[in-house]
Amino acid sequence: MFTKLARRKVFRDPLYGYINVDYEIISDLIDTKEVQRLRRIRQLSGVSMVFHTAEHSRFSHALGTYEVARKILENVCDIRNYMHEYEQLVFLISALLHDIGHGPYSHSFEHVFNIHHEKMTCLLILGNTEVNRVLSVNAQLILDVVDVISHGGKYPLIESLISSQLDVDRLDYLQRDSFFTGTPYGKIDMDRLMRSMTVHDNVLCYKASGVHTIENYLMSRYHMYWQVYYHPVTRSFENILESIYRRISDLIKEGKKLNTNVDILINVLNNNYDINSYIELDDAYVNGMIKQCVNSSDPILSQMCTDFMDRNLFEYIDLDLNEDEKLVEGIINKFTSDEILKRYYYAVDSVRQVTYYQNTQSTFDVKNIFILTPSNKLVALDEFSKVMHSLIESGNKESKKIYYKYPRGLECLNK
Amino acid sequence: MFTKLARRKVFRDPLYGYINVDYEIISDLIDTKEVQRLRRIRQLSGVSMVFHTAEHSRFSHALGTYEVARKILENVCDIRNYMHEYEQLVFLISALLHDIGHGPYSHSFEHVFNIHHEKMTCLLILGNTEVNRVLSVNAQLILDVVDVISHGGKYPLIESLISSQLDVDRLDYLQRDSFFTGTPYGKIDMDRLMRSMTVHDNVLCYKASGVHTIENYLMSRYHMYWQVYYHPVTRSFENILESIYRRISDLIKEGKKLNTNVDILINVLNNNYDINSYIELDDAYVNGMIKQCVNSSDPILSQMCTDFMDRNLFEYIDLDLNEDEKLVEGIINKFTSDEILKRYYYAVDSVRQVTYYQNTQSTFDVKNIFILTPSNKLVALDEFSKVMHSLIESGNKESKKIYYKYPRGLECLNK
Amino acid sequence: MFTKLARRKVFRDPLYGYINVDYEIISDLIDTKEVQRLRRIRQLSGVSMVFHTAEHSRFSHALGTYEVARKILENVCDIRNYMHEYEQLVFLISALLHDIGHGPYSHSFEHVFNIHHEKMTCLLILGNTEVNRVLSVNAQLILDVVDVISHGGKYPLIESLISSQLDVDRLDYLQRDSFFTGTPYGKIDMDRLMRSMTVHDNVLCYKASGVHTIENYLMSRYHMYWQVYYHPVTRSFENILESIYRRISDLIKEGKKLNTNVDILINVLNNNYDINSYIELDDAYVNGMIKQCVNSSDPILSQMCTDFMDRNLFEYIDLDLNEDEKLVEGIINKFTSDEILKRYYYAVDSVRQVTYYQNTQSTFDVKNIFILTPSNKLVALDEFSKVMHSLIESGNKESKKIYYKYPRGLECLNK
Amino acid sequence: MFTKLARRKVFRDPLYGYINVDYEIISDLIDTKEVQRLRRIRQLSGVSMVFHTAEHSRFSHALGTYEVARKILENVCDIRNYMHEYEQLVFLISALLHDIGHGPYSHSFEHVFNIHHEKMTCLLILGNTEVNRVLSVNAQLILDVVDVISHGGKYPLIESLISSQLDVDRLDYLQRDSFFTGTPYGKIDMDRLMRSMTVHDNVLCYKASGVHTIENYLMSRYHMYWQVYYHPVTRSFENILESIYRRISDLIKEGKKLNTNVDILINVLNNNYDINSYIELDDAYVNGMIKQCVNSSDPILSQMCTDFMDRNLFEYIDLDLNEDEKLVEGIINKFTSDEILKRYYYAVDSVRQVTYYQNTQSTFDVKNIFILTPSNKLVALDEFSKVMHSLIESGNKESKKIYYKYPRGLECLNK
Repeated sequence: MFTKLARRKVFRDPLYGYINVDYEIISDLIDTKEVQRLRRIRQLSGVSMVFHTAEHSRFSHALGTYEVARKILENVCDIRNYMHEYEQLVFLISALLHDIGHGPYSHSFEHVFNIHHEKMTCLLILGNTEVNRVLSVNAQLILDVVDVISHGGKYPLIESLISSQLDVDRLDYLQRDSFFTGTPYGKIDMDRLMRSMTVHDNVLCYKASGVHTIENYLMSRYHMYWQVYYHPVTRSFENILESIYRRISDLIKEGKKLNTNVDILINVLNNNYDINSYIELDDAYVNGMIKQCVNSSDPILSQMCTDFMDRNLFEYIDLDLNEDEKLVEGIINKFTSDEILKRYYYAVDSVRQVTYYQNTQSTFDVKNIFILTPSNKLVALDEFSKVMHSLIESGNKESKKIYYKYPRGLECLNK
Repeated sequence: MFTKLARRKVFRDPLYGYINVDYEIISDLIDTKEVQRLRRIRQLSGVSMVFHTAEHSRFSHALGTYEVARKILENVCDIRNYMHEYEQLVFLISALLHDIGHGPYSHSFEHVFNIHHEKMTCLLILGNTEVNRVLSVNAQLILDVVDVISHGGKYPLIESLISSQLDVDRLDYLQRDSFFTGTPYGKIDMDRLMRSMTVHDNVLCYKASGVHTIENYLMSRYHMYWQVYYHPVTRSFENILESIYRRISDLIKEGKKLNTNVDILINVLNNNYDINSYIELDDAYVNGMIKQCVNSSDPILSQMCTDFMDRNLFEYIDLDLNEDEKLVEGIINKFTSDEILKRYYYAVDSVRQVTYYQNTQSTFDVKNIFILTPSNKLVALDEFSKVMHSLIESGNKESKKIYYKYPRGLECLNK
Repeated sequence: MFTKLARRKVFRDPLYGYINVDYEIISDLIDTKEVQRLRRIRQLSGVSMVFHTAEHSRFSHALGTYEVARKILENVCDIRNYMHEYEQLVFLISALLHDIGHGPYSHSFEHVFNIHHEKMTCLLILGNTEVNRVLSVNAQLILDVVDVISHGGKYPLIESLISSQLDVDRLDYLQRDSFFTGTPYGKIDMDRLMRSMTVHDNVLCYKASGVHTIENYLMSRYHMYWQVYYHPVTRSFENILESIYRRISDLIKEGKKLNTNVDILINVLNNNYDINSYIELDDAYVNGMIKQCVNSSDPILSQMCTDFMDRNLFEYIDLDLNEDEKLVEGIINKFTSDEILKRYYYAVDSVRQVTYYQNTQSTFDVKNIFILTPSNKLVALDEFSKVMHSLIESGNKESKKIYYKYPRGLECLNK
Repeated sequence: MFTKLARRKVFRDPLYGYINVDYEIISDLIDTKEVQRLRRIRQLSGVSMVFHTAEHSRFSHALGTYEVARKILENVCDIRNYMHEYEQLVFLISALLHDIGHGPYSHSFEHVFNIHHEKMTCLLILGNTEVNRVLSVNAQLILDVVDVISHGGKYPLIESLISSQLDVDRLDYLQRDSFFTGTPYGKIDMDRLMRSMTVHDNVLCYKASGVHTIENYLMSRYHMYWQVYYHPVTRSFENILESIYRRISDLIKEGKKLNTNVDILINVLNNNYDINSYIELDDAYVNGMIKQCVNSSDPILSQMCTDFMDRNLFEYIDLDLNEDEKLVEGIINKFTSDEILKRYYYAVDSVRQVTYYQNTQSTFDVKNIFILTPSNKLVALDEFSKVMHSLIESGNKESKKIYYKYPRGLECLNK
């Protein structure tokens, strides 16, 4: 049903050697404007402020996620045999497209502009886009891919593989981010993981022999979060970016004119469903805008953009570790007593990461990890592994920091 | 004389583990606007069109080059002892700053706008810049770094280490580009190389035991050029970019107004020495400009930019391999018979790479590689190694291709 | 005081690039018979039955442990500055020699013949050996190295570095065994670990910023134990080896003559302090002996050695996982009801590994890991890290298996 | 026709992740005595004297060679489709078994005892062995595997894959030896190599796009030979070993009795076809024998074995590099003027390695490498690649050294 390429197409990849494309539809999807746009959005936003080599794009992660999916179909016959070719394509395509809805510097962007990348991904697949045209060889295919990405429940096993606590998305990004940051925490024993993967009672699960590998993967994830994704300088970068986004948004709402053309952003703000404008947004757009706004007549925006360009990021103080309560109190009082300071120069930032989310439902939640015991019973990972069970509590770590910035020329702002 | 940091500063790097900074002046230089700007310029321009993970910046290469220099001082006592601390700093600083003059998509840029990055590097060091201010603790230091970078001849040994056929620049970029493209050719045996490095009669040289390592390095370089840097899709990307640059330049010269603000570019065109404008140029600037020019009223520019955005790059035909002479002749005739076609839609592209450039001078050219024989005589590499000698001729490979593009709506252009 | 080599001596090593030797005394120690003997003893005994590439010797681990010690002195100035050169040498030498007392297939050997490798190490250093002669340039040095290896308490900080829950021994063997088995669990972030190492109140400790790296190291260790060291096929190999050792030992005690010369083994059995005989024992000795004993007139020994050669190892059953109680009971009854079966054909094997041993003493136990908080207080790792605290309980995993073997020709044995 | 295992069997391997076994016959062959014996023979004999981690066995190389063959069948459809299942098995089995005829410290052994490992491999496959019994499911299979290994010419394409200048044997051992020695020269771009492999006119060949990868592989091979296999300390080790073998052989021929049982060796000497004795020979046998011979009453043997154990290897002098002709002449005169000295204490050792052997035959020699040009013509590699062509001459490097040893107590020998 799906045409195969005359010759396998390959993309060299430092993690997997090659990314292998056999189906024409996959090749065509990679060539669409919406997937190519991911080349212009960095996977890790501000992380490169700390890890200077973390400059890889979401494009490489999209290809990588697809390749992990393809590898699973190639190597795990229990999964391959469980799916018809059509379902295999739903799986591969969902893996490739799962992130196309991301905006530039996504987290800050979504937070301020109230956009959700998963929803945007679905809009882009359903809308008047090149991706949609490629998929429209089969109208059902479009709906099924959207169903998987939006957790519709039609294909629970594919959903488990695409978006759960152990999915092709995480398997690629942990390895990829580890490779590009140069941190050794993200190494995953993919070979063994695939060897222990199976399907039982229609549930994706792992043989008991794979439990140590899974424990190791979860600890890797835990450490990548604390060492890389939640690094305070990364968070500080995101906080100043949020302030810039917020100020621009406020100025637009107040009807102020900026010294640079931000029509596209305005379109997106006015209408989240304006996907044509949305896909114009990328890192270059945001970087260009910020660069122009250095010369804005608005002193807050101008100063914030200057600081962003010069990497004068927010300062921070750790609420859990700091013992000088007076100092903390002083900062909080100062920055919360003034509306401007509170809105643009101050952020309370709580990050948290659990090593593993417990299965709390009576049924088999697709987001959880299940173990097939030697006596062929399905049990939740945290029931099977004492170690994971204990980490549910203890690994539920939260870190609270205050990020703040003393504006230069504070007096003028207070007027 | 040079202040050391209270605590060594480190940058995580996937190639070297850490990049280590001990001197305050190095740390301050890294923080300057001019060095930070390199974060916004990709090391390999269009190579990521072929190798999708080759998205690393010139910033990581600048740090890496510095680190290779530092490692040599740390591990090779013959070199460390040969230099006073002052000269060591000249070496380290030259390594860090050697590329700050690069523009965005540098090769095409330099070619069309007649700018040379090495000259720009020197202008930036000498001009009214943050780098200059940091270096101005010692006026002599500024001059000496410029002397090294511009091959002034005052410090021949440092020049050999900074810019020769085997220098800290190449040692870093071959390894780095190999790592980020995922090709296995760039692996260099740094440990053994450093162990065989020495100084004899004031000339940088290598003990005979290191010859195989050097041969291996030169072959790696040779293969990286043909497999990565000269990949035809990479070249095709650079050719379309050159056409865009050329058209913009022509329009500006004709006094046409573009639909986007290109004042900075105009400044640079009018005055190469306008370093303030120059450092505003980065990948984001060029990407943004091209995106805007999709909507230019000039049909050539508009179409070219659209094709660039959609990756409709130039086609190419290999003049050496192709046997259909008629086809080749037809293309050449068509594209050279029309001024517009010839200027914007056509390029003859000759790339060449030798495995090793022979030492042709009677004296010890700092660009060459010298071997210290067991009987303590200095000889040129190609005299010592039969293999390298034979590769001088045979490895002098040239590849000639024609790149061309059929404009849509050709008839309108011909009017 | 200690002579340095004219030129640094290096050994190529796949883990560290080079192992670097600067002191003559280290070079001389490496050349001694007792250290060279480690070339003939595999680091992982029967693990290569499961991981076929785990064939590396204790010699490479001895060099590696020394190199980790050297790296710490080179990179961690808080530790380097804490020690005089003399103490640095005590540290380096203890690292190099800490395992010279190991016998072939050490665990089974020690178990049956009641020998302890740490004690043997000290005897070899103190006795009439080449190691002793090299060290005798300084009589005190001999005593101090023995003090460190035997936990004498004179140099608590060096003891912490040589033998604790996070020491140069473990740092090397986890990485090395991971490399040679091909399992990805043993990757340790050495760079960061060294960067967080310090000394406070004479106690070796780690800055809070290193806690995640330590957690990661401890989880790696945990997984290496369960995936590699305690693999049931490995244990099965060791169990059949123990039976062979036991039978030989019994025959010797009964005064029976074997069909091969085992004088050396007899010497060791009669006198543990006979170090001349002890250092004759290596893998080749044991392999040769077992090969000869295939033709022994003793049917138990002959059969057991044949099975060993043909890799007919013991079968095993997991007491925790198995649910067929009847089967288990049947096996236990059969094998414990007969003296011969019980002694040679049956073993109850309990392995256990905790992720971390809690600090239970009021003082600073050199075996524990301590964290220096941002407010400069020393606390035990398990007090500082919620995750490690919870793992003390849950990670205290024990696995109990029965290993057994049905003898062929059982009836004849029972007579 | 060939039974597949119910579940794929895997062996963890650091180079390939897993070695995958699907056929029962492959699994059974791995379990035979003759293949398992390879666990007890080191792949690189004396190389571990220089590269201390090069302690891997021929067993791991046998599995690795098989896996490379399997990978080619899996990934290169032009080759897979060219062969029936039966031929695929001939290929896989030949890869697995190609080295079973190797003796301990093979090169010295073959040299002195006039045994050829390839011939022994065939004898072991044809003789009364476990390998033969496993293969005897199909009498033709035995003959066809022997035909391939002995270059019989029945399956030229399989012969090219098993034994040529670019075969599965070399592909595995270069990568494996590079990994275990820790030298970075043996990295091969397997992915790209396989992608360019094809079959044309029944000849194994490579598309032009793979030429750089092949050049790189040949240079890697060249450097591995000079840096590792031909390292003078390695050669020195082999030379002293040869002297020991030669002395034992002479003593046996003279009817002298040794102080250790060498019946097996005598059997092999008397009858090369005595495969039962042959497979008893392994590293442990030789090591044990040498250890015993330290106490031989023959002074030459005793001294030589003592020196071997203490690593007092032969000294050497390079005839090409050394300029002190008098010194060289003196040594030659001394050692060739005495029969004993000449026979046991002296060796002229010429090693040579060409980067590439030219195709000199008019037909397509299975040992050569052929390129399929874009216009679908088969040409020899050295015709296609200027670089390889020039290296045929220049890379034909020969190194001549004299190895010698001053016997202690020379006077007594001369009597």
